[in-house]
Amino acid sequence: MEKRFNQSVFEELKSLLQDRVTSETNIRNEHGVGYSYHACTPPDCVVFPKNTQEIAEIVKICANHKTPIIPFGAGTSVEGHVLALEGGVCVDLSKMNHIIEINTDDMYVTVESGVTRNQIDEALEGSGFFFPIGPGVNATLGGMASTRASGTNAVRYGTMKDNVLTLTAVLPNGDVIHTGSKAKKSSAGYDLTRLLVGAEGTLGIITELTLKLHSYPEAIFAAVCSFPSVELAVNTVIKTIQKGIQMAKIELLDDQMMRAINLYSALNYAEKPTLFLEFGGSKVELEEQIRKVEEIAHEHKVIEFLWEKGEENRKKLWRARTDAAPAAVALREGGKLMSTDVCVPISKLAKCIVDTQVDIAETNILAPILGHVGDGNFHLTIVVDPNDANEIERAKALNERLVKRALDFGGTCTGEHGIGIGKLHFMQPEHGDALNMMRTIKRAIDPDNIMNPGKLLP
Amino acid sequence: MEKRFNQSVFEELKSLLQDRVTSETNIRNEHGVGYSYHACTPPDCVVFPKNTQEIAEIVKICANHKTPIIPFGAGTSVEGHVLALEGGVCVDLSKMNHIIEINTDDMYVTVESGVTRNQIDEALEGSGFFFPIGPGVNATLGGMASTRASGTNAVRYGTMKDNVLTLTAVLPNGDVIHTGSKAKKSSAGYDLTRLLVGAEGTLGIITELTLKLHSYPEAIFAAVCSFPSVELAVNTVIKTIQKGIQMAKIELLDDQMMRAINLYSALNYAEKPTLFLEFGGSKVELEEQIRKVEEIAHEHKVIEFLWEKGEENRKKLWRARTDAAPAAVALREGGKLMSTDVCVPISKLAKCIVDTQVDIAETNILAPILGHVGDGNFHLTIVVDPNDANEIERAKALNERLVKRALDFGGTCTGEHGIGIGKLHFMQPEHGDALNMMRTIKRAIDPDNIMNPGKLLP
Ligand SMILES: Cc1cc2nc3c(=O)[nH]c(=O)nc-3n(C[C@H](O)[C@H](O)[C@H](O)COP(=O)(O)OP(=O)(O)OC[C@H]3O[C@@H](n4cnc5c(N)ncnc54)[C@H](O)[C@@H]3O)c2cc1C
Ligand SMILES: Cc1cc2nc3c(=O)[nH]c(=O)nc-3n(C[C@H](O)[C@H](O)[C@H](O)COP(=O)(O)OP(=O)(O)OC[C@H]3O[C@@H](n4cnc5c(N)ncnc54)[C@H](O)[C@@H]3O)c2cc1C
Repeated sequence: MEKRFNQSVFEELKSLLQDRVTSETNIRNEHGVGYSYHACTPPDCVVFPKNTQEIAEIVKICANHKTPIIPFGAGTSVEGHVLALEGGVCVDLSKMNHIIEINTDDMYVTVESGVTRNQIDEALEGSGFFFPIGPGVNATLGGMASTRASGTNAVRYGTMKDNVLTLTAVLPNGDVIHTGSKAKKSSAGYDLTRLLVGAEGTLGIITELTLKLHSYPEAIFAAVCSFPSVELAVNTVIKTIQKGIQMAKIELLDDQMMRAINLYSALNYAEKPTLFLEFGGSKVELEEQIRKVEEIAHEHKVIEFLWEKGEENRKKLWRARTDAAPAAVALREGGKLMSTDVCVPISKLAKCIVDTQVDIAETNILAPILGHVGDGNFHLTIVVDPNDANEIERAKALNERLVKRALDFGGTCTGEHGIGIGKLHFMQPEHGDALNMMRTIKRAIDPDNIMNPGKLLP
Repeated sequence: MEKRFNQSVFEELKSLLQDRVTSETNIRNEHGVGYSYHACTPPDCVVFPKNTQEIAEIVKICANHKTPIIPFGAGTSVEGHVLALEGGVCVDLSKMNHIIEINTDDMYVTVESGVTRNQIDEALEGSGFFFPIGPGVNATLGGMASTRASGTNAVRYGTMKDNVLTLTAVLPNGDVIHTGSKAKKSSAGYDLTRLLVGAEGTLGIITELTLKLHSYPEAIFAAVCSFPSVELAVNTVIKTIQKGIQMAKIELLDDQMMRAINLYSALNYAEKPTLFLEFGGSKVELEEQIRKVEEIAHEHKVIEFLWEKGEENRKKLWRARTDAAPAAVALREGGKLMSTDVCVPISKLAKCIVDTQVDIAETNILAPILGHVGDGNFHLTIVVDPNDANEIERAKALNERLVKRALDFGGTCTGEHGIGIGKLHFMQPEHGDALNMMRTIKRAIDPDNIMNPGKLLP
């Protein structure tokens, strides 16, 4: 790839930011790969802006020289989103970490884009409100918006696209724009908010976000239910959703993944296809919901329906779920994670998972499955030997077949991780001519292709 | 305005559609105004395509001649959305009225864009599922998507933006694209679905939509509660939402509007600021919710809390609500409706309404208020004497002040009706530089400005 960086960009950045620009190898390398399985491709330098105005200046400097810009949140994205394919300037948002306003009357919080999930949780503690979207890792809100992230709560509260009210963003020409309004809905013009959400930094840099808050339920119960088969587990979920029972979390872990978390978190669950459930609401509501869900589960031959009612046990359960990725990696010494996710219409989910399990077994790859199954979304946490080129090829081929299967079922190549570079080649099969419209938009907004070039659009 | 229509466009359309193209004056006039207070501005001809392919051919013919195209659903939009400002071809979608698939497993319905709300209701009757979004009139789904419509259920189920899974659309260059997927979520690329939703036909013609279904609640209760003041009514709503109580509908009608519906629907409610509420859920849930809401209402000095538990009474109540616009018009012989809506953060709602009521009284205009107040959204149903130019000017000035007030409160110039031409001049004050980004997108996708020119973007 052609490089579009030069010394004068660095000098200009230096005079703007002084010691908040660096070209140290260590720091560049730390910013060149994220949690992806791709090879590290570092930027030419890394900057640490402190406010929107500085970011606008940085973008103008880069725009003048047609230098690539790679926005960087926490670097937890898994598809090579932050690789500096054509070099350039990595804009690290970690110093944009202020919570600007918590408004409980209007139920929103406004944050700088480098604020992390955990920071929001801490700031809201005791307020009676919470922000529902959370990947299984402490990502930034700007990064989460940019990958259209979701997580375990999405089945009830939606994804980032449903929970962002307004954005402040710096466009590739240096313009600072404010999208949306703090009103709960609007029909005033194009929905720029939702165009920037999921854009993976290819249309601009998000600098501030206003996010919807939700009220904390009166009571929360969690349960663990193991089933004789994936079909029976998934059909339990479908039936529950069809009955309009609003669970807060519905996670599926296959037998392999149950083995991994039992080992990793010293637990003793059945190593069977298992649902982790969470219910939130008033006590009266919950009692009824629980009764109904137990009934549905029993109709679907549930082996064991275990309540984790105390807060302690509940936290332990969800910690084990959050630790699923490291747990899978720990199954194999020196193993490296290759995470992938797809999403299908829920009626196709059981077949999609079962066919995939057969494929995994035949390919002889370690790939425990877990999923936000209420949405039809599941992940393979593939664990490979990073030194075994043949195995890596087989793992990639497995991923190819997984995505093809999901698309054949009317699904999408990624439910929540995004495209980055890892899924670029699925954009055409998934979107067909709609891809041209995406390209038209990208070219119009970023004619010099400086914003995170090489990502999202093949 | 320059006209961009000629005889050869007509001939080409004729040979494609035969008797499904017309330039009859009556039909052109029927398509030139919608429910707006603006003067009728008819298109040069009207076409009635039967499928996506025909629409693509029509668009190509028009694109060749740079002839404007105005998509037309049911023509119920209120801000001059369908006026043919530069003449051209009105694409009437009423023959695109087939329900393509009802899928209760995956809880979606796929329809052609000319299918109406009522058609969906009928098709789903007895299925246990329903589609929640409904304006107070029988609009088409393509029109509703294009204005980002909502209605009484939005407080619980969201707006059109939240309930469209996929779209098929014909772009200004004649390309047919499919956006989104039938999976419940995706992080694969730009969100074209939500770019087309709310675009008011300025980016393309929607020809098919896949919409989310929701399960019909086990029980439904409705209530009517009158309050001594708008503040007390609105604070009841805020408190209820903060407690996480999910009502299905929360409508506010001011004393004027209550008088209008009492007269029109032969009812006998107190002519006080009033909430119409609907609760949906299991019986147990509802009992609890009702108890809590009654408690909150009493804390806010509710005058009367009237339950409409039977289906009959409930239907009567919502029919009266639906008839609010004609009821307001009926207050005045020969009166003409000028409908307008704004939306503000809910903590600002009471003050925004009260200030507006003062303004209405001072301006001496008939303008009953009603609103989807759970979202901070309210409407003035202004009723003017169409022959009194001075009164119309005063009504317009009232609307200007209303919108300015909403923007000052951090709100939006329209919560659900859209921009059309009536609110064009608020786009700059509301969006600032973000408007440039909208213009960039429009120019890129529709460089010859043939799709509904003169709307949405000033
Ligand atoms: C163990 C583990 C578990 C995970 N679980 C989940 C999960 O449950 N659900 C889920 O959705 N994801 C999950 N992920 C993926 C990852 O956490 C998400 O993609 C997350 O949204 C990335 O946020 P980040 O702050 O790390 O962004 P980064 O990785 O820094 O960046 C992601 C992308 O967004 C761009 N970007 C970052 N900040 C901005 C900004 N301010 N403006 C514009 N563009 C920006 C970057 O250029 C890049 O393209 C998981 C990852 C790991 C490692
Ligand atoms: C009495 C009354 C009550 C109302 N109540 C509400 C309410 O509660 N909530 C609410 O949101 N609105 C309400 N409205 C406004 C109106 O019903 C909505 O704006 C509705 O969405 C318009 O749908 P339609 O099919 O009539 O579209 P039209 O009026 O035909 O068109 C509206 C716009 O969309 C474009 N368009 C139409 N079809 C397509 C298509 N297939 N592809 C691309 N563009 C298209 C048109 O060009 C136009 O710009 C009300 C209107 C009235 C008269």
